[in-house]
Amino acid sequence: MNPKKIGIALAGYGMIGRLHAMNYRQIPFIYPGILPELELRSVCTSRESSARAARAEAGFITATTEIEKLLEDPLVEVVDISLPNNLHLPVARAALAAGKHVYCEKPLAGTLEDALAIQTAADTGPGTFGMVFQYRFIPAVQRAKEILQQGKLGRIFSFRAEYLHSGYQDPQRPLTWRMKRESGGSGALGDLGSHVIDLMRYLLGDFESLQAHLERFIPRRPLTRGGTDLGEVTVDDAAWLRVRLASGALGTIEASRFATGTLDDLRFWIYGEGGALHFDLMNPNYLAWFDESNPGGDHGGQRGWQRLQTVQHYPGALTPPARSPLGWDRAHTENQVAFLSAVTSGKEPSPGIRDGLEVQIVLDGAERSSAAGGTTVVLD
Amino acid sequence: MNPKKIGIALAGYGMIGRLHAMNYRQIPFIYPGILPELELRSVCTSRESSARAARAEAGFITATTEIEKLLEDPLVEVVDISLPNNLHLPVARAALAAGKHVYCEKPLAGTLEDALAIQTAADTGPGTFGMVFQYRFIPAVQRAKEILQQGKLGRIFSFRAEYLHSGYQDPQRPLTWRMKRESGGSGALGDLGSHVIDLMRYLLGDFESLQAHLERFIPRRPLTRGGTDLGEVTVDDAAWLRVRLASGALGTIEASRFATGTLDDLRFWIYGEGGALHFDLMNPNYLAWFDESNPGGDHGGQRGWQRLQTVQHYPGALTPPARSPLGWDRAHTENQVAFLSAVTSGKEPSPGIRDGLEVQIVLDGAERSSAAGGTTVVLD
Amino acid sequence: MNPKKIGIALAGYGMIGRLHAMNYRQIPFIYPGILPELELRSVCTSRESSARAARAEAGFITATTEIEKLLEDPLVEVVDISLPNNLHLPVARAALAAGKHVYCEKPLAGTLEDALAIQTAADTGPGTFGMVFQYRFIPAVQRAKEILQQGKLGRIFSFRAEYLHSGYQDPQRPLTWRMKRESGGSGALGDLGSHVIDLMRYLLGDFESLQAHLERFIPRRPLTRGGTDLGEVTVDDAAWLRVRLASGALGTIEASRFATGTLDDLRFWIYGEGGALHFDLMNPNYLAWFDESNPGGDHGGQRGWQRLQTVQHYPGALTPPARSPLGWDRAHTENQVAFLSAVTSGKEPSPGIRDGLEVQIVLDGAERSSAAGGTTVVLD
Amino acid sequence: MNPKKIGIALAGYGMIGRLHAMNYRQIPFIYPGILPELELRSVCTSRESSARAARAEAGFITATTEIEKLLEDPLVEVVDISLPNNLHLPVARAALAAGKHVYCEKPLAGTLEDALAIQTAADTGPGTFGMVFQYRFIPAVQRAKEILQQGKLGRIFSFRAEYLHSGYQDPQRPLTWRMKRESGGSGALGDLGSHVIDLMRYLLGDFESLQAHLERFIPRRPLTRGGTDLGEVTVDDAAWLRVRLASGALGTIEASRFATGTLDDLRFWIYGEGGALHFDLMNPNYLAWFDESNPGGDHGGQRGWQRLQTVQHYPGALTPPARSPLGWDRAHTENQVAFLSAVTSGKEPSPGIRDGLEVQIVLDGAERSSAAGGTTVVLD
Repeated sequence: MNPKKIGIALAGYGMIGRLHAMNYRQIPFIYPGILPELELRSVCTSRESSARAARAEAGFITATTEIEKLLEDPLVEVVDISLPNNLHLPVARAALAAGKHVYCEKPLAGTLEDALAIQTAADTGPGTFGMVFQYRFIPAVQRAKEILQQGKLGRIFSFRAEYLHSGYQDPQRPLTWRMKRESGGSGALGDLGSHVIDLMRYLLGDFESLQAHLERFIPRRPLTRGGTDLGEVTVDDAAWLRVRLASGALGTIEASRFATGTLDDLRFWIYGEGGALHFDLMNPNYLAWFDESNPGGDHGGQRGWQRLQTVQHYPGALTPPARSPLGWDRAHTENQVAFLSAVTSGKEPSPGIRDGLEVQIVLDGAERSSAAGGTTVVLD
Repeated sequence: MNPKKIGIALAGYGMIGRLHAMNYRQIPFIYPGILPELELRSVCTSRESSARAARAEAGFITATTEIEKLLEDPLVEVVDISLPNNLHLPVARAALAAGKHVYCEKPLAGTLEDALAIQTAADTGPGTFGMVFQYRFIPAVQRAKEILQQGKLGRIFSFRAEYLHSGYQDPQRPLTWRMKRESGGSGALGDLGSHVIDLMRYLLGDFESLQAHLERFIPRRPLTRGGTDLGEVTVDDAAWLRVRLASGALGTIEASRFATGTLDDLRFWIYGEGGALHFDLMNPNYLAWFDESNPGGDHGGQRGWQRLQTVQHYPGALTPPARSPLGWDRAHTENQVAFLSAVTSGKEPSPGIRDGLEVQIVLDGAERSSAAGGTTVVLD
Repeated sequence: MNPKKIGIALAGYGMIGRLHAMNYRQIPFIYPGILPELELRSVCTSRESSARAARAEAGFITATTEIEKLLEDPLVEVVDISLPNNLHLPVARAALAAGKHVYCEKPLAGTLEDALAIQTAADTGPGTFGMVFQYRFIPAVQRAKEILQQGKLGRIFSFRAEYLHSGYQDPQRPLTWRMKRESGGSGALGDLGSHVIDLMRYLLGDFESLQAHLERFIPRRPLTRGGTDLGEVTVDDAAWLRVRLASGALGTIEASRFATGTLDDLRFWIYGEGGALHFDLMNPNYLAWFDESNPGGDHGGQRGWQRLQTVQHYPGALTPPARSPLGWDRAHTENQVAFLSAVTSGKEPSPGIRDGLEVQIVLDGAERSSAAGGTTVVLD
Repeated sequence: MNPKKIGIALAGYGMIGRLHAMNYRQIPFIYPGILPELELRSVCTSRESSARAARAEAGFITATTEIEKLLEDPLVEVVDISLPNNLHLPVARAALAAGKHVYCEKPLAGTLEDALAIQTAADTGPGTFGMVFQYRFIPAVQRAKEILQQGKLGRIFSFRAEYLHSGYQDPQRPLTWRMKRESGGSGALGDLGSHVIDLMRYLLGDFESLQAHLERFIPRRPLTRGGTDLGEVTVDDAAWLRVRLASGALGTIEASRFATGTLDDLRFWIYGEGGALHFDLMNPNYLAWFDESNPGGDHGGQRGWQRLQTVQHYPGALTPPARSPLGWDRAHTENQVAFLSAVTSGKEPSPGIRDGLEVQIVLDGAERSSAAGGTTVVLD
């Protein structure tokens, strides 16, 4: 590849595609010199007008509605996919077949079948395949990983992870692609649950078995706001998993779009023999750590949760200052840096195809367990 | 009954019995004149030395190790039971047969069979039967009940309730009666879970079905601290329930003695179409309420969680000041007042035998579901 | 004194008097056997009806409206004063002259002159003189004292202490004795400020100088609710102090009855070379401690505030459980225990007359500084 | 001016200059089309190597160490100044004289004399003069402004504003330009205090008088880390102000670099007759609002602080999502957008020269009050 410049194309330019594009522009200021120049070469969206607008806004050299055209450009080395889940397979397969590196939004695909096909394509081609599981890149999560790797928590007994959104509790909210199985793949489970499934797997290891329940609270919705024609919601509104990890730890996972009052409430608690950890995305500047080795004593002694000031402590980052509050988008930027660093160094990205696939296996197991009334599904 | 004086006997004088006794002494200062004089007549414990010590400490007129002696006293009108769960049935049955009113610590009994036998005895005798589910009497919980009764939350989609303790994660912690089925009945499920099961039923209505998993993290423990002889733990260390209420709402309940870093962490979240509620016992002065009817607007408008200052706002209470921080014991006192007020007015206490029984049915269902691998158990 | 029994009389039976009486009844359950039997012998209030009501409620043997009668009883050994500040001097002097021990609510007196006269009386008589500064006895404050005594904070640079109440911002709130200099002595400064002045002195040492401003936001108020006759408020509504301690540390103190939205918001922050401390009465179960010796590192390393779980960790207390939330009244009970233990052991109580006097000197200095436009007042 | 493109030059490229440059790159993604194209034309730093590095990193067309060269470029329309405070005057004056628009970091200058000279230059030239007081642009602060403008708080009694940093408490920390009067102008007061002075003035109106104390905790420091040669610190380490506003409200302001355990702890509380507001930069997603008009009632009724979910609710912003956590840098971007919008529309920017000057007058008054022992200084 060109050691001086990386050509990037975006497949999809919704809210997340726009964010990725903006972040590529920020990277040189945060980590000057660690990557070649990043060139935003092209963008592909479903309509010509949106493609043109995206080009104007972001400064892409070209814009198209045909993914093939985008792939023909030899200077495009990275294809960044932020499309509905059912389009991940065709676009990723085509990009990989064209020798491109692929950076793919979560979940890997709409179905396990699709995910396996992407894996096959990724294993076959020369390109690097990176996943977006950006919450791994919050400093508090990185710190949690360090504490766990140092064995500070010892045997893990249990955990709780939840990712709660609101907004869907309004029955008048119209049907969108996110509520249809053929486009969204799964609902809250895939959209939100995939993040916390990945986080728990990243921190605590592989999943062994699960029992799940998926619920549609509002099964039919208007096709348009205020309209009277209704369509069926074919994905879950909320999902509950009880899982056992390979380590023996037990956990519960909840994903919901019906959690009134929540914003972007991703939270976890991990309880181990040697201590505990807690994180809350809505106050992302801290990792709460309880170290069981602190002794008790008069008036309670040394025991208590420590709110580690992880803030924006990214090693080597020049701006924003490490002590000032972290924004949600920053972890996305770091995920992009990690992927591009893997591309330039030829290393396997983390998270990569395997991480995407493992999450998809859990999503698939949850669907199967729920369909069978909550029976135990062993994940192989 | 004597309109001027109520004679009270305590069966059991551990930490909770002592607390009840202390609270009876406080009631006249908090609510002067609303009850007859409360006389601490007698105490019954398992050993003569502890009975004597209890009498000296609390000022009981008599002390005994035989429950029958306690029941012979015609001036004892109320028997307050704070004994291991398996002793609830014999003592409650004898007290009710002797025409006494009974105030019983939760859970109602060690087994559903025992609980049903207590119910039969309570239905037969003239005495009033009151339960201790003191968390109902925290002002924040009372406020939650009011908001729910006013229909502010509309359709309830889901809830989460957890009661987490720590301390048992130490493998050297010796075996006690709380870890044996024949004395404790159940473990974290009965000891802690019973509280949040009652709270959710109190706030949201009856349970319809459940799936449960009970776990023993440390199945064998030393019989004495530092000893090498081991005995088997025969109750759960932690329990997870996924329940469906009669209203259709879905909920998860967790009870654990292995939640490192927790103290007395009873928390719940309730998500409804019209709003949401949150409570945390470790900061018991507030009920967090999200009112979905608050409009959005520039910079977010009026939307947000309101931390209602419930503090110690007990209507009519003269001390401590309503604005100052609530202590854990205060809800116990209020439960005692509610029971004694029912006794003097001849009304059915709330919580009463039916509440105790309903919780026991859920505990029993959870045991059966877990034993069968987590299958759905419908509660009748 | 009688080694088996301590006779206690209450001078004043408002909200605080009632609380003290209730607490004497609780002590045997919390610390069985550490004190002689406590007998509530008599109560003195300003009106016969309230005296009779207090006797009936609390079980005093006698009730009176004349302090002399109360002092005639040789079995009264302790006089507990919860009266308007201007009455502290006559009652304390009479009680001390009668050979009684005195337990006095803060502030010591309405004026420095009165306070010095009480000191003279206390130094002359055989009785023990104890002060109520109950916030010292919150476990989190005790823990702060330990950490400071161990030198963990090193040189103290600065502190902030505030005690904020609300309610007086309503201009229709009628004039009461608390708003008149002749009865209340001072306003927010004496009522609320005295607590945080004592706390900072207890934790950080003596005050050297200060600059102060006292403000009356609403100088005239109705004499009765809804009335049109107005009277003058002659004490401060809020007070601000900037102080320098003998140690060189600088601090700010704020006391206000006009802090809308506050309940019982006593908070402090202490910043030292080796660390920092923070406490908030509205969540009294924790002391927040920042230990500067924790090293930084990747993603922030070990740095962060630890929320020490002080809860109700009173050494030796049998109930309530140490892990459950602390109530506001509990620190009052502990202050009473400390005083009575001093009485029985013959030791000087802490807090005692000297502590009361030192706070009064600061109050007086603040009045003088404010009257002079905020000039520096050196405290001797 | 060119309606299609704005040429921007940066004077200074430290942490803040870099941040500004990065933010100019982000604006098109957040608000596509609301501004002309932004061209980063040139950068001026003190050393050639750093100028070259900045050009390479940020993509400036030219780099220089001579401000005159930068000003010669007719396509440079905006000069963005992020230099030590003593350099604000010469650079701003030269830029304004060259007909440029100026965007100036706070505080306006190192001295009031300099600030007045800048004002004269700004009033004379055709260019627009904008200030950086980015904390105004946090949605929670905007929401506070709206609530205050709607009169919800009524008469303001008092406020508290503090901006606390740590790090300087280490005596080995070497002397830098920020600790010297001739370069930094003032210390914590100017660096941190200027922000909260501006915020309180923005929210509550003009300052009328003040009393202040400035402290140097560590008056001499090593010139280099580990060195033995010491130099004098000539600015304050911490500053305390007690102020009266034109509205009659009283407030305290604290700025410190010695607040161990703090990160970027900007906090304020405002207490009014009709309610109260609270903000904490370390959890910037919320504005806490207490609305006194909410009625009390059983168990406290409707009273309590509401945590308004201001998050990233910037009207019209396309990314990041409004519901996800706000980063510190985002308010800087919004300040830049506001300034550039003023430039393109020809309106007076807010904050502008007048805001910078008013803050400088307060800074100057605080210096004078402290030098005179804390006497009252009336601000004209």
